[in-house]
Amino acid sequence: MDPRSAQTAFAWRGNASSDAAVEGMTERSKSAGKSNSLELIALDDVPEVQPGDDVTRIVIDAVAATNAKLEDGDVVVIAQKIISKAEGRQVSLADVTPGDEAQRLADKTGKDPRLVQLVLDESNRVLRHRPNVLVVEHRLGFVHANAGIDQSNIAHGEGQDRALLLPLDSDASAAKIRSQIKELIGVDVGVIVNDSFGRAWRYGTVGHTIGSAGVRALDDLRGESDRFGGELQITEVAIADELAAAASYVMGQASEGCPVVLVRGAAKHVGSDQTVRNLLRDPKEDMFRD
Amino acid sequence: MDPRSAQTAFAWRGNASSDAAVEGMTERSKSAGKSNSLELIALDDVPEVQPGDDVTRIVIDAVAATNAKLEDGDVVVIAQKIISKAEGRQVSLADVTPGDEAQRLADKTGKDPRLVQLVLDESNRVLRHRPNVLVVEHRLGFVHANAGIDQSNIAHGEGQDRALLLPLDSDASAAKIRSQIKELIGVDVGVIVNDSFGRAWRYGTVGHTIGSAGVRALDDLRGESDRFGGELQITEVAIADELAAAASYVMGQASEGCPVVLVRGAAKHVGSDQTVRNLLRDPKEDMFRD
Repeated sequence: MDPRSAQTAFAWRGNASSDAAVEGMTERSKSAGKSNSLELIALDDVPEVQPGDDVTRIVIDAVAATNAKLEDGDVVVIAQKIISKAEGRQVSLADVTPGDEAQRLADKTGKDPRLVQLVLDESNRVLRHRPNVLVVEHRLGFVHANAGIDQSNIAHGEGQDRALLLPLDSDASAAKIRSQIKELIGVDVGVIVNDSFGRAWRYGTVGHTIGSAGVRALDDLRGESDRFGGELQITEVAIADELAAAASYVMGQASEGCPVVLVRGAAKHVGSDQTVRNLLRDPKEDMFRD
Repeated sequence: MDPRSAQTAFAWRGNASSDAAVEGMTERSKSAGKSNSLELIALDDVPEVQPGDDVTRIVIDAVAATNAKLEDGDVVVIAQKIISKAEGRQVSLADVTPGDEAQRLADKTGKDPRLVQLVLDESNRVLRHRPNVLVVEHRLGFVHANAGIDQSNIAHGEGQDRALLLPLDSDASAAKIRSQIKELIGVDVGVIVNDSFGRAWRYGTVGHTIGSAGVRALDDLRGESDRFGGELQITEVAIADELAAAASYVMGQASEGCPVVLVRGAAKHVGSDQTVRNLLRDPKEDMFRD
């Protein structure tokens, strides 16, 4: 197994000798057992992000503030919100003029017609609506509520008059941060941009990937055999979404606001040309879009 | 913050002094920073499970084999498969006689009509079908593919003639393990039973909760304010599903098979009367069931 994934197992081992404990991580990984493990840590001191801010620099500074160190094979998960803010995706509702369709859907859902217009502008189509919710296919292909447009955790001028759109191209945002981290500090990390999605059949949001770079988003196990040599029935695992969900747990959703999470132990899935697009089901195969 | 969640952050802190490193975990948690963190470890040496096996004993032994120690506030995530096996939920297809409806759906999907009969027996209704997939509402309320019936990672007699059904009552399975761990070793843990689910609009499976005990499955943030004092728009987070997804990543899906994962850093969500039922959307609120 990858020695990296054994490192974090060490802290769990109550009987580990003190001598082993004071050795460096490399030594520790040699002495640790065979367990697979994963460690996630929310970075300290991520400042409030402003339009034009450099998210890569914010990540690197936050890693330092947390007294951590980025290593090859780490995954950095970044909340959509700070990328959108840095990219200037805030919109003032006062600048939006709702059209007829927006007005019609606003009447049906009870939502602000200007907000509905933004949702329509950001979407290919509306799949469903009910009070306060529009389920859409976002222009980037995600099926989710309200085109991911958020009005919480953004500074408001007067009342609820600001909205935050998703990044223009969240895969490109992730790719840029990944390549800048490589350039600036020479470390090969995966980058995932995550957002909280509701689900069709379950309550509560779960973190999902909306952009990624350098991560094997979809791990194809076809051809691998199970423990008994039979063919695996589950052939594809949404690696990036499992990591996005895990990071979302650590980020939390409330006032504490931890928008950047380091993930260690996923190195075997870092180094890939895949992006979030590998996760998006072809609408032709979709049983729940119409 | 909960000091427990700071413990695992420690291993990340490159500049931590050796003196601090050799102190016990309690001391470490005092000296660690404010970061939220989460650590997951797949347990070593989980044996192949047989009908009648005691999963609680298997978990306790595997914790010991991993040289770890269960602590109050830990969450134990257990793959559905080993619980189903222990509960004797294997079925021989030779014992199944498909009815007319099963035969009709088998013709449409290309699935074994005996397997389709098992899916129907385990389901309230079929929502959709396409080649090789039946999307159903399971009798326990989950909306997923093929009623969670699995033919991989089970020992086959002759060919693909065995299938493994979900536990009869996966919340009860989780509750039993939680209470037995408390009785046997006096530790108050949360228990999640997880399974890999496909998703309507995305490729790849992600771990979902199918049973839980002692975990705040759905965290209701209504009434909390965001960083700017505004009302949070995302009001409920599916905590158990985020942890189930994270654990699923660590378990892996292929031949290595790690069916039990310890989660440390989620103590603030342990100690709750909620179960997976708190996550299941009321069909009356459902936009994608019909």
